[in-house]
Formats: sequence, C-alpha cells, structure tokens
Amino acid sequence: MNDNIIIIGQKPPMSYVLACLTLFHQGFDDVVIKARGKAISKAVDVVNIVKKKFIPSVRVKSLEIGSERLVNDKGKVVNLSTITITIANK
Amino acid sequence: MNDNIIIIGQKPPMSYVLACLTLFHQGFDDVVIKARGKAISKAVDVVNIVKKKFIPSVRVKSLEIGSERLVNDKGKVVNLSTITITIANK
Repeated sequence: MNDNIIIIGQKPPMSYVLACLTLFHQGFDDVVIKARGKAISKAVDVVNIVKKKFIPSVRVKSLEIGSERLVNDKGKVVNLSTITITIANK
Repeated sequence: MNDNIIIIGQKPPMSYVLACLTLFHQGFDDVVIKARGKAISKAVDVVNIVKKKFIPSVRVKSLEIGSERLVNDKGKVVNLSTITITIANK
C-alpha cells in the first residue's frame, strides 16, 4: 500500500499539510512525505506545521536523505537531493 | 568542542563542501551541518556532494529536523524550519 505517500511540489505548504491531516484522518498510522531539490525545505515546513498547529502527538519516525539522477529540460544529467520523512501518529 | 559545525548560508554549495573536507582533513571524525529555512535543501546537497564526489565512505550519522522562532526584519515572529545533519567518516 503506497496510498500514504505525499510528494511535495509547487503548491503552498498548507496544501500538503491538509493532505497529511486527511491521511491521518483516514486511519493511516504513518504518512510518508517525499521531496526533491528546493522542495526539501518545504517538506520540513510541512512536518513542523502538522506537529505545531494540528497534531502535537505526531513524531518523526524516520528521516532519510539521498540523491537522484535526472535529465533536465536541457538534456543535461543533474544530481538532485531528496528527502523522505515518515511521520507517525501512534 | 563545537569547531566541527558548519552553518549553511548564502554561499554556493561548494564553499560548504570545501569546509566539510577541511574539517575531516583536520582530523574530526564527525562534521555537523546545520541549516534553516530555504538553506535546508542546500545542506542536503552539500552532504550528497561530499559523499558522491569526494569521500564515498562518509555516512549520515544523525539527521534531525525542528523549528525555531525568529523575529524577522519587519518585527514579525516567524517559525523557521531547521535541519541538523551529522556526517561521519569512520
């Protein structure tokens, strides 16, 4: 089951916060938040907002960083940093 | 001893990569990389560059996220996300 994964993109942080809250409300114990490149900062913001403003009992269960190789618009291979944050509400 | 802490700021990633390499070269087993706000993505980039291009044996020893309250230029209190990445070469 990979229904509990949220990929952080261009939208404002609150969109992803709401997505997290919805998943916890649906009964998932864990929510996985993934981001690449500049969105990494936003992923951390989302976790902090969920914890500080909505569900104080949420904790970071695992935290991983890595990198991916991508071909950009100009056909150039670039290394992009990634983060995967798993938060749990139990 | 807090001499092995690198704070990620406005400079290009390679400046911080060089700072890491210098610290390892000086004999530190661990280097602590800290960043706030939008610099968080750059902190992850720095770790990946050190590992992929310079010292493949480096591993992430600990990884923490959090938030800090700051007063910004306009006197408003803002929450800023933080990351602390400890990398080790042993």
